[in-house]
Amino acid sequence: MPRALVLFSGGLDSTTVLKITKNRGWEIFALSFNYGQNHDYELECASRIVKDLSISCHKVISFDMRTIGGSSLTDTIEIPKNREESEMKNQIPSTYVPARNSIFLSFGIAWAETLDISDIFLGVNAVDYSGYPDCRPEYIQAFEQMANLATKNGVEGKTKLKIHTPLINLSKGDIIKRGIEEGVDFSLTNSCYDPQDNGAPCGRCDSCLLRAKGFEEAKELDPLLLKYGLS
Amino acid sequence: MPRALVLFSGGLDSTTVLKITKNRGWEIFALSFNYGQNHDYELECASRIVKDLSISCHKVISFDMRTIGGSSLTDTIEIPKNREESEMKNQIPSTYVPARNSIFLSFGIAWAETLDISDIFLGVNAVDYSGYPDCRPEYIQAFEQMANLATKNGVEGKTKLKIHTPLINLSKGDIIKRGIEEGVDFSLTNSCYDPQDNGAPCGRCDSCLLRAKGFEEAKELDPLLLKYGLS
Repeated sequence: MPRALVLFSGGLDSTTVLKITKNRGWEIFALSFNYGQNHDYELECASRIVKDLSISCHKVISFDMRTIGGSSLTDTIEIPKNREESEMKNQIPSTYVPARNSIFLSFGIAWAETLDISDIFLGVNAVDYSGYPDCRPEYIQAFEQMANLATKNGVEGKTKLKIHTPLINLSKGDIIKRGIEEGVDFSLTNSCYDPQDNGAPCGRCDSCLLRAKGFEEAKELDPLLLKYGLS
Repeated sequence: MPRALVLFSGGLDSTTVLKITKNRGWEIFALSFNYGQNHDYELECASRIVKDLSISCHKVISFDMRTIGGSSLTDTIEIPKNREESEMKNQIPSTYVPARNSIFLSFGIAWAETLDISDIFLGVNAVDYSGYPDCRPEYIQAFEQMANLATKNGVEGKTKLKIHTPLINLSKGDIIKRGIEEGVDFSLTNSCYDPQDNGAPCGRCDSCLLRAKGFEEAKELDPLLLKYGLS
């Protein structure tokens, strides 16, 4: 059984990636981060999803990016609401967390190395996204190249590390269609940057707006909205 | 006053880098890591050194690499002692911590971004070292390239991030000579991977052996050994 390390936030995209890898027969090692995010409700979702999918190996690494700040996800800066799609494409918003994917992926390559795993999956997307620099294909390629020099494998010339990003070029609508085909239970996922205490999404942050657009494109109802009586 | 972010462990190399940058007039933001290392005595040294050098900004980021394991610095694996120099050059030892420099540098670029700093310094060395893959020039170059795609600066085309490694091509003897010229107090630094409770170095791990070789080459006495009555 091939083994995959999957970076997993409990959101719509990474849950789809998790289900795709599971359905393709990979043995999954899921990795989540408690990084001081204000919306740490996503970690509860992550736990429920790995349980639902019977994934036995789920590690959560903790550190505090609030001490670094610079983002509305970890600081007291207000989360932008009701942004237009054109704005999302042209301006990196305050929800961008400095170097987050580099930190996540670096922990990923560390754990992959101790597990002797060569395949790392993550759910980044560069189509319907908030313009984060560390979601673009050229970034992922550069990270993969660096990773292969950073680790023992790179020196000893064994199998190369491969960073898989199966959703990177899909629209949000296509991700949702793909997720539904794969049997993802989207009612368990959290996308919202600013959820209420009970987990109900705000409906107005970039992430909620992109999710709503995706379900509209896919001509599906979002079961998360149904769950909270919001649809 | 130009501003520099310096990755700082409290060891011989990074203390030399800290003093070089200070002497050149940089305003310093020092960054250390409490990563679950067994030899966390180095963090006490780091605190004393930043105080000694009147560096007011020193951040320590905490996370636990013991949960990842795979290294004698974070696990219960025995630390190799009395290795020959040829062995150090040809075999990556168990003290290698998977992807450690990638994790450290990723936190570095995150903090640098919130501070709007473009210059990151670290004390890696690829001459008298234990063969760690993430100390080699090709790794540093690849990291720098990745970092410039990972962050806002990379997208917005402002100043490029630069990773400075002033010691990378020096022998340990030359690092020590340089440190002495710059006024480093080496009695405050810790190099040992397995120090005694009072901080006395073991004298037999790779790091102690390389340090001893360096002081011999530099024709100097190690003030740390004098302090502990070991010379």
